[in-house]
Amino acid sequence: MKKNILVGQSGGPTAVINGSLYGVVTRGLESPDIHKVYGMINGIEGFLNGRMMDMAALEEDGTLPLLKTTPGAYLGSCRYKLPEDLSDPVYPELFARFADLDIQAVFYIGGNDSMDTVSKLSRYAASHDSDIRFIGIPKTIDNDLVLTDHTPGFGSAAKYVASTVREIGVDASVYDNKPSVTIVEIMGRHAGWLTAASALARKFEGDNPVLIYLPETAFDQERFLSQTREALKKKNNLVICISEGIHDADGTFICEYASEVGTDTFGHKMLTGSGKYLENLVKEKLGIKVRSVELNVSQRCSSACLSRTDLEEAVRAGSFALDCAMEGKTGVMITFERQEGSSYQMVPGTADVNQICNEEKVVPAGWITPDGCDVTESFLNYARPLIQGQVEVPQEDGLPHFIYRK
Amino acid sequence: MKKNILVGQSGGPTAVINGSLYGVVTRGLESPDIHKVYGMINGIEGFLNGRMMDMAALEEDGTLPLLKTTPGAYLGSCRYKLPEDLSDPVYPELFARFADLDIQAVFYIGGNDSMDTVSKLSRYAASHDSDIRFIGIPKTIDNDLVLTDHTPGFGSAAKYVASTVREIGVDASVYDNKPSVTIVEIMGRHAGWLTAASALARKFEGDNPVLIYLPETAFDQERFLSQTREALKKKNNLVICISEGIHDADGTFICEYASEVGTDTFGHKMLTGSGKYLENLVKEKLGIKVRSVELNVSQRCSSACLSRTDLEEAVRAGSFALDCAMEGKTGVMITFERQEGSSYQMVPGTADVNQICNEEKVVPAGWITPDGCDVTESFLNYARPLIQGQVEVPQEDGLPHFIYRK
Repeated sequence: MKKNILVGQSGGPTAVINGSLYGVVTRGLESPDIHKVYGMINGIEGFLNGRMMDMAALEEDGTLPLLKTTPGAYLGSCRYKLPEDLSDPVYPELFARFADLDIQAVFYIGGNDSMDTVSKLSRYAASHDSDIRFIGIPKTIDNDLVLTDHTPGFGSAAKYVASTVREIGVDASVYDNKPSVTIVEIMGRHAGWLTAASALARKFEGDNPVLIYLPETAFDQERFLSQTREALKKKNNLVICISEGIHDADGTFICEYASEVGTDTFGHKMLTGSGKYLENLVKEKLGIKVRSVELNVSQRCSSACLSRTDLEEAVRAGSFALDCAMEGKTGVMITFERQEGSSYQMVPGTADVNQICNEEKVVPAGWITPDGCDVTESFLNYARPLIQGQVEVPQEDGLPHFIYRK
Repeated sequence: MKKNILVGQSGGPTAVINGSLYGVVTRGLESPDIHKVYGMINGIEGFLNGRMMDMAALEEDGTLPLLKTTPGAYLGSCRYKLPEDLSDPVYPELFARFADLDIQAVFYIGGNDSMDTVSKLSRYAASHDSDIRFIGIPKTIDNDLVLTDHTPGFGSAAKYVASTVREIGVDASVYDNKPSVTIVEIMGRHAGWLTAASALARKFEGDNPVLIYLPETAFDQERFLSQTREALKKKNNLVICISEGIHDADGTFICEYASEVGTDTFGHKMLTGSGKYLENLVKEKLGIKVRSVELNVSQRCSSACLSRTDLEEAVRAGSFALDCAMEGKTGVMITFERQEGSSYQMVPGTADVNQICNEEKVVPAGWITPDGCDVTESFLNYARPLIQGQVEVPQEDGLPHFIYRK
């Protein structure tokens, strides 16, 4: 007898998280072993409240292909953490819902916290003789998941960051007869992958961004000022890229010097303002023209800088996840393994989700220059293939045509 | 005998200011009546310091076509105001330089202040029997020049704003089970054209942005809060667009209230924008999740959202300016006249630059709704044709390929 599958999205959106959803849904709809493909609305939290949809509707109204180029999370997202205690009544409640819907496999597309959900559900299943398979599909612009070469979502965000920093460099250079500093604040609390990607923006040696600061290295304000002073001797218009999460040797976030910070529902510190703080610092200490630019949410939702490589891999991660579930795999996350050789080739695989959900992959120390203000050629060789290729986004009336739930 | 021409760029850059430069240069290089096409480096200020280049170099090395899709000001810009007093010695100095170079016509691509330069130079020429022609070519994302339907640069910036606000709306809706407000701050100190363009982002009636505030209408904080409260009754995730230059009935900029918000570790007031101030206001008065996004410089330098209509018109403004100069016109700015009829058609013309340089065109009161928080269908009909069409930007290694002075 045919069974059904269930797919959901969780955590912050990316430009290609719907690409993975597209991969799961199209593979599910074409599979002779699968009856219905259900989508959770607002992740596991919405599902608990009975919110779901039949994904065949998108095939019927012809909008399914638009999923691939629509940023955000089509199904809606949540930031809901399942209880640590597997004897909590929420688990039998969830599994009763799965049984009601005759669910054979659950796919959860997300980052660290979502892999935590996959881990708990698969462990609960194992201890309760359930044969439902739980597969995690990675997405995060932060690229901070372990056991995979990279994560879908990073390539497009990196392409957006590099393109935009290149444009900001062009903009900064129009008054090249007067000294100026532009500080660009890039997303990344603990991992500096995205900020490091700004190095791809350089058109020639010595081009902007001339200084790059990641959270992997302790940020010293005096050293920052002296490195800025030195760079101004060689170049009039500096672009300096920093991670939102840069902190000093004591672990104090630079933005904490600027303003109060709140915490989100996971207890993460909410960050804002490192760029603004450094703007004030440069103005005060160096007395030159300075501005700061926060790249903000466009890093994760711009459709204009989609990386074709990233989008294709995101779709593949979705369809591969379905194949893995059909083979009986559970409690795993889809990974990417880069093949040896001169041309870029990525092979999908799987890894134990329990080894992923509480780990964080940061930029290796060897990929950061000893002076702590740049990345090495090794990083560039790693990142460059991930931003290759453009994606044509369908247009309507001069603007990108996005799909949305009605 | 063949003569030479001189072209310069001034004021803030746009995504298509180099398109107009391309128009002047290509038309100049192909003209049998013109010998050399010189470019001023850093506008009239750089030219006074002897900084210039022969534009044929770009034809020789094959990079000329890249000008069209390179944002920023290829020749560099300046913010230099010529003296009001035409008997100032800078004028004979400039005209001696023009004579040395055998200049027949000068083209200045810029906004209000640049038209002021064209006005002064053409008036000086008229009063000193010089037959050098001075032509202004408009560019400004602000769209605030009078006597023209619109200005090159606005269409691409409007397309960037509308696309980005649409993406921010998608991003904001992923947690659609929880109320939230996203405030988007858009460029425009006195004229709200760009902020108004955010209305194009709506995918359906009632879609985001649900509230739009222009500097043409006095901003009342209490009314803003009550309009936000009302909107939250109908929709969970609001996107609200504001001009950076919104001000209250007394003329106090809203961002001026922001300086009272906090101080940094130096004891300095943190200078933040109108968006940040309203973010804090909503947090304090409505107690819901709120964030602010400043679209910042990408509005004027993004190459990813170039409007083909805008770029074609920018190039045409440049080549048409050359034709006008050859016909003997001087002291004029290139304008666009929209033709009557159902399909969009724009015809270039000229207007007396003296009637332009000290005026500012704002959004007509009739195009703003009576409640001051939206624009009318008339504005949408005006703006929609300007964002049509995409431009393929040449790529190198996964990123836009820009031309730059070496």
